[in-house]
Amino acid sequence: MVRTPLGRTSISVRSAITDNRTVSHPPVAPGAAYSVTIRLEAPTDPQLLPRIAQTVTSEGAVVVAMDLVDVSVGGAVVDVTLQAHDEAHVSRLEHALTAADMRVRNTSDRVFLYHLGGKIEVTPRRTVRTRDDMSMAYTPGVGRISTAIAEDPERAWRLTAKGTSVAIVTNGSAVLGLGNLGPLAALPVMEGKAVIFKQFGNVNAYPLCLDVPSTQALIDATLAIAPGFGGINLEDIKAPECFEVELALQAQLDIPVFHDDQHGTAIVVLAGLINACRLTGRELKRTRVVVVGVGAAGTAITLALIDAGVGDVIAVDKDGPLTRERPSTLPHHQRIADCTNPRGVTTLTDALKGADVFIGAAMRGSVDPELLWTMAPRPIVFALSNPVPEVFAEEMPDGALFATGRSDYPNQVNNSLCFPGFFRGALDARARSVTSEMKLAATRAIADTVTDEQLSVGVIIPSMFASNVHDRVAKAVAEAAGAPASKVDRA
Amino acid sequence: MVRTPLGRTSISVRSAITDNRTVSHPPVAPGAAYSVTIRLEAPTDPQLLPRIAQTVTSEGAVVVAMDLVDVSVGGAVVDVTLQAHDEAHVSRLEHALTAADMRVRNTSDRVFLYHLGGKIEVTPRRTVRTRDDMSMAYTPGVGRISTAIAEDPERAWRLTAKGTSVAIVTNGSAVLGLGNLGPLAALPVMEGKAVIFKQFGNVNAYPLCLDVPSTQALIDATLAIAPGFGGINLEDIKAPECFEVELALQAQLDIPVFHDDQHGTAIVVLAGLINACRLTGRELKRTRVVVVGVGAAGTAITLALIDAGVGDVIAVDKDGPLTRERPSTLPHHQRIADCTNPRGVTTLTDALKGADVFIGAAMRGSVDPELLWTMAPRPIVFALSNPVPEVFAEEMPDGALFATGRSDYPNQVNNSLCFPGFFRGALDARARSVTSEMKLAATRAIADTVTDEQLSVGVIIPSMFASNVHDRVAKAVAEAAGAPASKVDRA
Repeated sequence: MVRTPLGRTSISVRSAITDNRTVSHPPVAPGAAYSVTIRLEAPTDPQLLPRIAQTVTSEGAVVVAMDLVDVSVGGAVVDVTLQAHDEAHVSRLEHALTAADMRVRNTSDRVFLYHLGGKIEVTPRRTVRTRDDMSMAYTPGVGRISTAIAEDPERAWRLTAKGTSVAIVTNGSAVLGLGNLGPLAALPVMEGKAVIFKQFGNVNAYPLCLDVPSTQALIDATLAIAPGFGGINLEDIKAPECFEVELALQAQLDIPVFHDDQHGTAIVVLAGLINACRLTGRELKRTRVVVVGVGAAGTAITLALIDAGVGDVIAVDKDGPLTRERPSTLPHHQRIADCTNPRGVTTLTDALKGADVFIGAAMRGSVDPELLWTMAPRPIVFALSNPVPEVFAEEMPDGALFATGRSDYPNQVNNSLCFPGFFRGALDARARSVTSEMKLAATRAIADTVTDEQLSVGVIIPSMFASNVHDRVAKAVAEAAGAPASKVDRA
Repeated sequence: MVRTPLGRTSISVRSAITDNRTVSHPPVAPGAAYSVTIRLEAPTDPQLLPRIAQTVTSEGAVVVAMDLVDVSVGGAVVDVTLQAHDEAHVSRLEHALTAADMRVRNTSDRVFLYHLGGKIEVTPRRTVRTRDDMSMAYTPGVGRISTAIAEDPERAWRLTAKGTSVAIVTNGSAVLGLGNLGPLAALPVMEGKAVIFKQFGNVNAYPLCLDVPSTQALIDATLAIAPGFGGINLEDIKAPECFEVELALQAQLDIPVFHDDQHGTAIVVLAGLINACRLTGRELKRTRVVVVGVGAAGTAITLALIDAGVGDVIAVDKDGPLTRERPSTLPHHQRIADCTNPRGVTTLTDALKGADVFIGAAMRGSVDPELLWTMAPRPIVFALSNPVPEVFAEEMPDGALFATGRSDYPNQVNNSLCFPGFFRGALDARARSVTSEMKLAATRAIADTVTDEQLSVGVIIPSMFASNVHDRVAKAVAEAAGAPASKVDRA
């Protein structure tokens, strides 16, 4: 039943770094994630560039650019920039080029070059060029600002960067789909997030990758750093600890605390479902939904669906559907069991039969793709596991509405659609907490960004590069947080 | 004995916000710290601008600029930007202008305007314009960077901003000379410091103003946030807790931890003393030094003097000189008593008699300026209390070499001379700790920045705007930290 698209061969990909077992599935398309520049030397030959292109293409990679770096009597130096599947694929390309009588001088990995020196910096909004500037920026002038804030802490929202700043807090216990890599290895991800925060929401986001021995220490450290920030974005903290951390912080802080892996994902998924229903003529509340995975994302998606009034949601963990009868020691499992699975379904096979929506928030291998063929016609399938989705589009029946978490496929369930605008709006409104209204406003703003003309199988979720989506989210969230639209103060 | 310079009247200034008693002393010169723009309306009159200038000047303020904003048949609108002594002075100026038939429409405080919206932002070093960029900056490409760092944590120095970043950590317990204002009120100071870090050292410094219930909690929170940073600058943490915090962090972290109020101050003071000795033909080791104040700065200065081989240092707290006989429960007092005061002097009066150097690291009122007239000829007086120094230049005998902590006087003992280059050098060398060699290298680099031609009563400490001082400090510190000069990698 696995249909391999023409020209692709089935290859093995590690499903997760923490777990070395390999699963067979269609290859991931070549993409910028494995983008390299190979410097080649070869005898001068008018057919050299076509020959390079042909060699690269015949190995299944995509040529991005070729630069003739140097030509002399004896030979030429060429930089060929290409997109490959993975590191093994790059090795095969090097061998193929060598076999075609070229010498590989070196291979530079564009992704590593991209990250060199880090992706963010802390820059002054004011310059200090003279002694007078210094008297204002620092002592003695700044003492007046400190005194003014000590007298009325509200002034910090205007007189410091607090009003424009968010901490991205993680302990690195669930980095992407890669598992518990720890705080330092999480840093490049958090920096990437900070780049997106600034570029799309004009939010100053700072990564804080916390080395903490316990959940309570994570809570304590986050409470400690909170004063200087207008919001806290929790990130890549594993379940179930993430629930405890978020609740504790929300109870003790007077700024919005938002675990993006939970709510950012749920908001974008719900926006996508609204549009998938719009396209297939379904009413969201009457759909039958199966959510596989009851971690951070799966839990938040399930609860968001219940909040949105969906009556038939079945949440499934590795032991099958959660039911009121199945015992669990996890409070979030119990909470979900109490409000889902009204028909008391006990197997994943039964749950999927005739279901309208499948949401994978687990990992490749958690569901047999063949089972999804038993869903209702034009099934809606969101396979969110990253980097390898639970099911590939190629494994689904025609007419399926398909979304993944990957940036190199259409309909990316991309939290970047939400968080820059979400926090921008919260900061604009000086929101003191995250409310259901704010989350719902963001969901609708994202869904509504896709016009009736655009709505199609390939466009149920807008691109994060859609020019107006972040402004729409920011405005909707700020209004939902109680800011009069006219008073929204865009820094 | 107080000599009030011509044209200045003696006014009362609060010595500290935590302490409302006022002391009488010569006024602080008008400066940018109280810089305001007053918008005036007046009947049209060719003599209007001169009349405004005269009114402002006769009240002792300095006119910086006048702008004729609008002129109509009936009258003119003028913005006059001026530097005043303090807020009360601004009020008197408003009254004087009103009395001179002008209407004050509004007064905008340039210092507050300067701080509006905060002084720093977090900006991308890489842009995300396309889906391919996104695949490199964030998922899936960034996963390879995280994996690479998880395999070898050393890679984080190159592949993230860790290698260029410093945390400025405070609990706000000793903000400038203003006392325990708390973490939020400390934020504008730390942002100012971040501006200086970037502008003068190209160091990405992020303020972390910690809300912590105890010294141990401050230590724990700083340990927690450390992974993402290449150094920790402790700031405005009160003594004696600051000593415990610094020692605990240094023992547990593998990155440099530097309490700037201690060591930054000591480095700049020692550089200034070296040059003052150079100018007055003294040998530093043979000088007699009195340090008043045994807090963070006073302790570090005293220990740095002992390290530099000065044999006769007397440290004085509010109860008089520390001696081996005087009991103290404070470990840092005991440490100082053990290595200072070889002559067993028991009164401040006796200590100052014939002393070469006075260093005030306490507050206005801690020493009677008249006592300083008993020092040796051409005394060296560093009065570091901020914003009001222990003694003013006007209160000292002719020929004294005078330095303060203020930015609006010559010879500012300005930590900004040290910290940007110090941390730049430490980061360049990937230093894992702060050593005596690094501190001494910074001291010498700062002192040597003043050439023989420049060296004079007004120039014993270089300006932080001296074009080469920060590079010199960075290079000296990097070399002292063991980086081969050729390998210093300036990001």
